[in-house]
Amino acid sequence: MKKVLLFFIFLLSFNLSVFSQNHDSLMVRKIFTYCLEKGKGYEWLEHLCTKIPPRLSGSDGADKAVKWARQTLEDQNNGRVYLQDVMVPHWVRNDKEVLTLVSKGKRTPLRICSLGGSVPTPAKGIKGKVIEVKSFEELNELGEEKVRGKIVFYNAALANHHYHTFHAYGECGKYRWAGAINAAKMGAIASVNRSLTLALDDYPHTGSMGYEEGAPKLPACAISTLGADKLSAALKADPDAELELLMNCETLPDKPSHNVIAEIKGTEFPDEIIVVGGHLDAWDNGQGAHDDGAGCVQSMELLRIFRDLNIKPKRTIRVVLFMNEENGVRGGKKYAEEAKARNENHIAAIESDLGGFTPAGFFSHCSDSTKLTVLDPWKKLFEPYGIYQWYLPGGGVDIDRLKDQGTLLIGLQPDSQRYFDYHHTEIDTFDKIHKRELHLGTAAIASLAYLLSEYGVEK
Amino acid sequence: MKKVLLFFIFLLSFNLSVFSQNHDSLMVRKIFTYCLEKGKGYEWLEHLCTKIPPRLSGSDGADKAVKWARQTLEDQNNGRVYLQDVMVPHWVRNDKEVLTLVSKGKRTPLRICSLGGSVPTPAKGIKGKVIEVKSFEELNELGEEKVRGKIVFYNAALANHHYHTFHAYGECGKYRWAGAINAAKMGAIASVNRSLTLALDDYPHTGSMGYEEGAPKLPACAISTLGADKLSAALKADPDAELELLMNCETLPDKPSHNVIAEIKGTEFPDEIIVVGGHLDAWDNGQGAHDDGAGCVQSMELLRIFRDLNIKPKRTIRVVLFMNEENGVRGGKKYAEEAKARNENHIAAIESDLGGFTPAGFFSHCSDSTKLTVLDPWKKLFEPYGIYQWYLPGGGVDIDRLKDQGTLLIGLQPDSQRYFDYHHTEIDTFDKIHKRELHLGTAAIASLAYLLSEYGVEK
Repeated sequence: MKKVLLFFIFLLSFNLSVFSQNHDSLMVRKIFTYCLEKGKGYEWLEHLCTKIPPRLSGSDGADKAVKWARQTLEDQNNGRVYLQDVMVPHWVRNDKEVLTLVSKGKRTPLRICSLGGSVPTPAKGIKGKVIEVKSFEELNELGEEKVRGKIVFYNAALANHHYHTFHAYGECGKYRWAGAINAAKMGAIASVNRSLTLALDDYPHTGSMGYEEGAPKLPACAISTLGADKLSAALKADPDAELELLMNCETLPDKPSHNVIAEIKGTEFPDEIIVVGGHLDAWDNGQGAHDDGAGCVQSMELLRIFRDLNIKPKRTIRVVLFMNEENGVRGGKKYAEEAKARNENHIAAIESDLGGFTPAGFFSHCSDSTKLTVLDPWKKLFEPYGIYQWYLPGGGVDIDRLKDQGTLLIGLQPDSQRYFDYHHTEIDTFDKIHKRELHLGTAAIASLAYLLSEYGVEK
Repeated sequence: MKKVLLFFIFLLSFNLSVFSQNHDSLMVRKIFTYCLEKGKGYEWLEHLCTKIPPRLSGSDGADKAVKWARQTLEDQNNGRVYLQDVMVPHWVRNDKEVLTLVSKGKRTPLRICSLGGSVPTPAKGIKGKVIEVKSFEELNELGEEKVRGKIVFYNAALANHHYHTFHAYGECGKYRWAGAINAAKMGAIASVNRSLTLALDDYPHTGSMGYEEGAPKLPACAISTLGADKLSAALKADPDAELELLMNCETLPDKPSHNVIAEIKGTEFPDEIIVVGGHLDAWDNGQGAHDDGAGCVQSMELLRIFRDLNIKPKRTIRVVLFMNEENGVRGGKKYAEEAKARNENHIAAIESDLGGFTPAGFFSHCSDSTKLTVLDPWKKLFEPYGIYQWYLPGGGVDIDRLKDQGTLLIGLQPDSQRYFDYHHTEIDTFDKIHKRELHLGTAAIASLAYLLSEYGVEK
């Protein structure tokens, strides 16, 4: 009798499991169909990119983007929308970014952009001979004597052989971030780094850079990859060639700004929170279409999808549009601090910040790695939509601060082949967005948020 | 003793299997690295697209493309290069493709292109009222009386909800191919079909169409999707609106042309042949960059890859650039006929004809489905390069004729989101090609060809 009972319990639980698998698979299908047929993110992104000025933290554009995002979220009539105050850095590029190669009496302009956070040059510019290196090791081997008084040119090209372009980017990012720091240690007067892209073209790529407290601060810029090749060739032909650099960027006092948050309260477990977000700020030289307008509209659209498909999440979902990912991560830090101060339970956070391309997978990370297994039964549900890659560790820069709270961090992983062609440049514009690719990413995020809201994350 | 021996045999075979897995995985890695770092296909494709005129079968451009491909293959110094004669249709678009909407005294031009193979209109054009339908069923329900003397407008929009865009294309392709046939049966005077694309823009998409022997031949054209929406709205506002159509395309006598073939003889099983190919002809309104310049250069590059990586295939590899896929498949038919006549053993054929986008998988088909299992152990080798999708049936239009010979047919399956935006239009141009995406496809094809040449296909 007991055996028969156990058998029926087994059958029942088996059927329930099959039922929920089928139910989940149908819901994921509904979400993808809705996004492909009725997605609005593309339209929203066009507005954000083309009607609102560049939106680097502290700018008028950033203020306007906050207002627009708040209003657009409120218009969805699904959940409470509010702003979270955060003080942000206010760095401005201004109008002078000139690098001139002077060799054998000939002057050749080279396209550059100032790195975010850089100090300016003196008003009359600086001039100096050039030391070209491909690595910090090479710089150190040269020794202070050879570097002092010169301009350091980091010409580290991204490696083509990686399948995932972010691996190539990761290898060379340090020359942008720490190039000026290490050049300053050797007595150099400025730092120029090869743009962090696999494309060979004339668009310089900006991005954030650092200084060491108490050490000299060198002006730092990025040169286009074509420019870097040209400069390298010129230095081989004439090692005495000089560079003239003029930049008038500046750092103004911090300004108040906001994370924009929309919250759908969970029906059964309102204290278990799932964040879905991107960052609203973007570099000032372009429209920030892929970085990270795409991630913003993909996250925002969750309100529409859940509303129109009548999904009432069991757990609380917060769409968070973070401010200041690009040069300070103040929004991400503030969000995590307040979450901790209020002792909130963030079970999971999803970020989309690698462009609006066809989704290929999800990154994930958790300080308690056993929680990652929650994803396993769901992987099959995403295969009909080309999403197979779940093995790469990672999450997102904005949500990263939640990791100390044991939150399961997840990052959308789109196809990465084109991302760094546009990243941090004047050509990261709306016309580089493909509607279906963008909306597939939206659907992937909303589907995963749905599953997390249904099942939670086991402790 | 026997058990010990069996155990050692087991260990040995296990080790051999692990060894070959590792060896294969290393070789696939080498091929991908080579393609990403040193691929030439992108450069070749730029030449084919921008230096050689449009290359529809029978055109001067097609002749020039044959010469260029032959020379480029010969320059690789790897294998024997030769031409295979084939007679091809010679349809020319000419300069008149005009559709004008006449409604309430107002004349509105609408962008169209003639469908390949269409007859012209009379020199003074034709004019008629319009019957808009969304399907053949709808046309049949209307009945001959309502259709006679009118222009049939097939306004079947591709469905957005499919993940794979070729599924949407597949559903609507019949309106292009058989639209004029079915309109003629109802006594119509011309056929206009909505372009086969998910994009909403003003580029009409051409493509091949058919007629029935002995039945009236109607002029047939495709209207852009924006134009179709405009026409549909106009017909709702004014059901008596008329269309004026003028086309002067014509079919000239067949012309001699060629498939271009390069053969690397197998070192151990020269009689087992593996075809790797794409089609060299392309529609005349664009550059045929994705369709199918991409497939051609991906196939051609196999000679360089095998030469530079010192791969001597055990089985014979034939790179075949087929002529006339677009409007007759004469090259594919001729190749299969001659292969059969010579009693050649084609164990496998790979075609790339869905664009030069990031590869996502492979289609496959075999009349003896047990042969498909040969692919199973190799699937893991492709996962590090984002290739996971092996379940869709298919091969390629050109290699399809080999299926009667029991050949394992394989088609490269790139990400399909953007393909039909460009397909058969004036915007299928070289600037739509991404170098890394193209070269990843090259590597995928070369890797699979390598594995097939090493292990063959079990009978």
